[in-house]
Amino acid sequence: MEFFFNPKGIALIGATANPLKGGYAILKNLATGFKGGIYPVNPRYDEIDGIPCYPSVAQVPDPVDLAIVFVPGRIVPQVIRDCAGRGIRGVMIESGGFAESGADGKAMQADISEFARKAGIRLWGPNCMGLVDARQQHVFSFVSPTIWESLIPGDVSLIVQSGMLSGAFLIDSMTHGTMGVNKVCSVGNKMDVDECELLEYLVRDPSTKSVGLYLESVSDGRRFLEICRKSPKPVVMLKGGKSAKGAAAAMSHTASMAGDRKVISGALAQAGVTEAKDFHQMLDICRALASFPDVRTPGNGRVAILTYSGGAGIVASDFIDGMDIDLADLSPASTEMLRQVFPEWMPVSNPVDLWPAVEQNGAEKAYGAAVRAACADPNVDAIFMHCFAGGFALTTDMAPLAAAAEKAGKPLFCWLIGKSEEARRFQTETQAVGIPVFREVYRAVECINAVFARKQVLERQRAAGKTAADPAEPAGEPLRLPESGDGVLDEYASKQVLAGCGIPVVAEEIADTAGAAAGIAARFGFPVVMKGLAPGQVHKTESGLVRLGISSATAAEAAFKALTDAMKGEGSVLVQPQVCGEAELIAGLVRDPQFGPCVMFGLGGVMAEVLDDVVFAVAPLTHADALELIGRLKAQKLLNGFRGAPPADREMLARILVRLGRLGNDYPRIREVDINPLMVAGGKPVAVDASVILSA
Amino acid sequence: MEFFFNPKGIALIGATANPLKGGYAILKNLATGFKGGIYPVNPRYDEIDGIPCYPSVAQVPDPVDLAIVFVPGRIVPQVIRDCAGRGIRGVMIESGGFAESGADGKAMQADISEFARKAGIRLWGPNCMGLVDARQQHVFSFVSPTIWESLIPGDVSLIVQSGMLSGAFLIDSMTHGTMGVNKVCSVGNKMDVDECELLEYLVRDPSTKSVGLYLESVSDGRRFLEICRKSPKPVVMLKGGKSAKGAAAAMSHTASMAGDRKVISGALAQAGVTEAKDFHQMLDICRALASFPDVRTPGNGRVAILTYSGGAGIVASDFIDGMDIDLADLSPASTEMLRQVFPEWMPVSNPVDLWPAVEQNGAEKAYGAAVRAACADPNVDAIFMHCFAGGFALTTDMAPLAAAAEKAGKPLFCWLIGKSEEARRFQTETQAVGIPVFREVYRAVECINAVFARKQVLERQRAAGKTAADPAEPAGEPLRLPESGDGVLDEYASKQVLAGCGIPVVAEEIADTAGAAAGIAARFGFPVVMKGLAPGQVHKTESGLVRLGISSATAAEAAFKALTDAMKGEGSVLVQPQVCGEAELIAGLVRDPQFGPCVMFGLGGVMAEVLDDVVFAVAPLTHADALELIGRLKAQKLLNGFRGAPPADREMLARILVRLGRLGNDYPRIREVDINPLMVAGGKPVAVDASVILSA
Repeated sequence: MEFFFNPKGIALIGATANPLKGGYAILKNLATGFKGGIYPVNPRYDEIDGIPCYPSVAQVPDPVDLAIVFVPGRIVPQVIRDCAGRGIRGVMIESGGFAESGADGKAMQADISEFARKAGIRLWGPNCMGLVDARQQHVFSFVSPTIWESLIPGDVSLIVQSGMLSGAFLIDSMTHGTMGVNKVCSVGNKMDVDECELLEYLVRDPSTKSVGLYLESVSDGRRFLEICRKSPKPVVMLKGGKSAKGAAAAMSHTASMAGDRKVISGALAQAGVTEAKDFHQMLDICRALASFPDVRTPGNGRVAILTYSGGAGIVASDFIDGMDIDLADLSPASTEMLRQVFPEWMPVSNPVDLWPAVEQNGAEKAYGAAVRAACADPNVDAIFMHCFAGGFALTTDMAPLAAAAEKAGKPLFCWLIGKSEEARRFQTETQAVGIPVFREVYRAVECINAVFARKQVLERQRAAGKTAADPAEPAGEPLRLPESGDGVLDEYASKQVLAGCGIPVVAEEIADTAGAAAGIAARFGFPVVMKGLAPGQVHKTESGLVRLGISSATAAEAAFKALTDAMKGEGSVLVQPQVCGEAELIAGLVRDPQFGPCVMFGLGGVMAEVLDDVVFAVAPLTHADALELIGRLKAQKLLNGFRGAPPADREMLARILVRLGRLGNDYPRIREVDINPLMVAGGKPVAVDASVILSA
Repeated sequence: MEFFFNPKGIALIGATANPLKGGYAILKNLATGFKGGIYPVNPRYDEIDGIPCYPSVAQVPDPVDLAIVFVPGRIVPQVIRDCAGRGIRGVMIESGGFAESGADGKAMQADISEFARKAGIRLWGPNCMGLVDARQQHVFSFVSPTIWESLIPGDVSLIVQSGMLSGAFLIDSMTHGTMGVNKVCSVGNKMDVDECELLEYLVRDPSTKSVGLYLESVSDGRRFLEICRKSPKPVVMLKGGKSAKGAAAAMSHTASMAGDRKVISGALAQAGVTEAKDFHQMLDICRALASFPDVRTPGNGRVAILTYSGGAGIVASDFIDGMDIDLADLSPASTEMLRQVFPEWMPVSNPVDLWPAVEQNGAEKAYGAAVRAACADPNVDAIFMHCFAGGFALTTDMAPLAAAAEKAGKPLFCWLIGKSEEARRFQTETQAVGIPVFREVYRAVECINAVFARKQVLERQRAAGKTAADPAEPAGEPLRLPESGDGVLDEYASKQVLAGCGIPVVAEEIADTAGAAAGIAARFGFPVVMKGLAPGQVHKTESGLVRLGISSATAAEAAFKALTDAMKGEGSVLVQPQVCGEAELIAGLVRDPQFGPCVMFGLGGVMAEVLDDVVFAVAPLTHADALELIGRLKAQKLLNGFRGAPPADREMLARILVRLGRLGNDYPRIREVDINPLMVAGGKPVAVDASVILSA
């Protein structure tokens, strides 16, 4: 990949002297920043803006290891062949007219891919805006050269599947003083180089402190997650095309597949990726994480709020209340420090309203005392500070405050309001000393939350490195799935599969006669449940094939007769003890087109469909993954021993989820598994009903 | 109130020549904009900046009907007396040192109130920043006179309980080109003039198109809601102090009470108020609603998304998918119109990615065709347009687009990115032609959502005006509550109260003997439930005083004995048929310190506590209120006839909720009612268990 990021020389195929065309913008951008050889290729020119132009790639002198291509799509196949002939190793195709434009373009894209693979050439694009590297001043892109007016080097690198994000949007962020950027990779149709390879490059890149991605599709979901999971750097992702309608747009836009919202969220959470939901928000989270990638305070985000407005403190507190971070309880020592700058009548509490202290002592002294107190306070992990730029005697020197916070290892965040020009200057200067600045209270608080969520991910990773391997999983006999046929296994056969891989299932037996049914029921103890298993029948309840609360031998015999009658002698009758549990859960396995086998866990029974409290993780799951998955359910109260019930056995639940994932990984024929309900009775989970669905 | 907003002459008590003091800032601000007489009062000066100064209020010449007071708190009582003596009708006290500063200040505040009430003087404040009226150039505030550099008249008026919002924050919003403002009222401690009176004034003010409020407390919740409900103009409210910890901050900040988050949200929804959550967001929603206060399109927000970036369209679609608005299905006619500016290979669909059309035809033609198509399309209610300011040949004249949208009666919203200066200019110009501009995708979409939510509120109001009165409510006998004693009525007595006001309750009888229990059970039909009603006992289940599934006379007799033994002969035994329903709900009545009696409705049983799906409305409820309340529950599926069950009788549910509210209004002694569960069996709701709690 080095020839893409640090080429020795660049051939620009499609260079032009027409200043309205992209081929001119690329040349101008190369000439402005790139230090190596620049070789425009176009038979119609001898030179452009004083740079010698070559009639074909073959004539381009050494050294040249990268070609940037900006010619109409139909010419591209020949260009690639020329590049191969010239020994060029990387080709960045920025022109469109490929898979995104219909069947012909798709076929052409496939042909080019095939050729490049054989010739050992790497392709970036097509239909993309290439690369902007603000630190090295590499702008390998047809973005307007006016970008140079505002190019600010930063710590955040981006991988984006949208031209807007590597052009117009960057200019917005940089001219507004929001942030600088490091490397911005526009991937387009990803015919060869994809987000996985770029992400691997960027997490190793010493100058990149965090990586943000905007993707409409993920080429290889499992590899992508593996890279994220191993990344020592924070990764933030905004996935476009999460809704049914959004996904429709994604397909017409870059011929890509969009996954389900919950699967994506689950997969990202599992891999330790911070999920973003909007463009600016993604950048804001990226820069917060780049500023504080590895916080080591004792607590998980106990925030001291320092404002010059009671209202700001109250609203910030309200937001903190709804997140995973907390309002800090200030220690007596820091309360005492603050009392010294406060007027006598003013009680000290968090949120700290500094206005009266500012009036009495000036901003420098009031803010200084407050930040120093928070830095020294063992009950404080982070500081939220509200600043105004542009007057009101509220200006204070931020450098010593930033230094104090850094020394204490406590992230300091600033919510800024102020006069437009002064605010932009304050933001630039304050961010330069290491304090990220935000323009909305909520955004500042959600970025604090993201920094401490990342802290917990790193702590989990470190703990996983230290603890012994996962609880030993029984190797077990390989399962014997029905040889032929596909579709739904009946409840009994499904549970045999589950039991075979160590998932606890309810005791049950097939009864061949009414007498046998009564005998089995008596053995289990009344009441029992009897079910008719008719071939191909999925909805037993709706078909009247489930009889609950059978409380005598006579009733069992009658139920047997009724069920066999209802099935017209086609199926079999299953007898189970009736399980009454304190929690009705659901667990399952699905195959996602982007991420492969995924384990689902959620609230079961009627509530599953009504409230949709289900979470996902990508298989295989570690035991820690499974525990984390269980922890993501909203209805935690139900698992914690609600209303005097024993708490659910989370270890066993985790083992069930790990085993479900293993089923998905080891048996590609198993398309889906549904355990519904997975009852928790006396704390112990047991599969009461289940279906296993096979593919052909 | 006119003497506050349009005084004939103003006495400024506490005027000073010291430019670092608030008393100078007020004078400067008055002199800059106020056209009437300005009379600074301070015995130490003959004149300040050329304005004659008076030794006392008594000497101030006519006309003078407003005094602005900025002197230390302890002098204020005398000042008020002087004002009364001079016949001044309104006093705006901007200095602090009152209720917010402890017991002494509180007492002083009470004394002043009392005096003013008797003297017929109206008081605004204290501890506030007064009034900023950008249209009339009235700045009756100690805000820094630099505010004049950026004072932009607008349509949005604000009532704020935070100085920051009427000073620094306004300067932020105006200098950034976000918006102008109309009247901004800083209410401080609200010792006399409060949000109710100001809101009444502003909804009648012809130049105000929407009102935003930031409040930490509501002085008279019921009156406030009534004004909101009747307001012909959109009202937006950000309530500070919703969380337990936020509320603690609110109390120390302005000596105010904060209510519960869910009660506030419910009350605001019921009154048709749009709830905001952050400061800038509140202003953004205010200006969106001021732009489109009364949309009359046929649909409820079918949005056409016009972007020059596929990614922007996808992310906007994803947001729309999670809200109450929809992505529009473009009509064949508008698809055809768009096809004429699209390249041949590009399919037309919504979100509309205009980039290829811009490349082919220029921005003017591409955007023009798209907006005109959307305006003409009967399937489109609103337009989301993505613009870039500052190059890329993306600039287009917004005035004709705004005119087309206005003519079609369709709100047009703009998400803008661009170079900082150009973006600010574009925003100012675009907003001037009537298109609100936003800087984040999510914010633009949530403002579209707010505009169409308001449309539904107005439609409900118009419908309520047209339909007949509420379903006739039985007048009924007045209830006889126990004469003496307070506390919890037992289940039987509680349900007698409910039945007395027309709420359906489960059949039940008290059994005096085991034989009677068996007899009652036989009459009800087995299985029955038997409960021990021990005096003062609330948690019957936890105390083992509930016996379910009693299925024979013998079992009923045994249960009677067991229950009476458990109660040691103290209580009585209740027999009920066992109700199995398809939905377990909860309903109740609580008294909120700010809003008075409130009706609660939610998901019942175990799920009530686990999932917290409960909603609130303030009593009394109209039938329409009650239906709307039911519609706010998340678990709608459960009420719609889930899995073959009949749908819940919403009319009857609504009547139950209306009657619960009436109980709260008519019987102040009823402190709380809890119906849990309110079972829905065969579609019919019935109170199965209930407690009524009386106050002394």
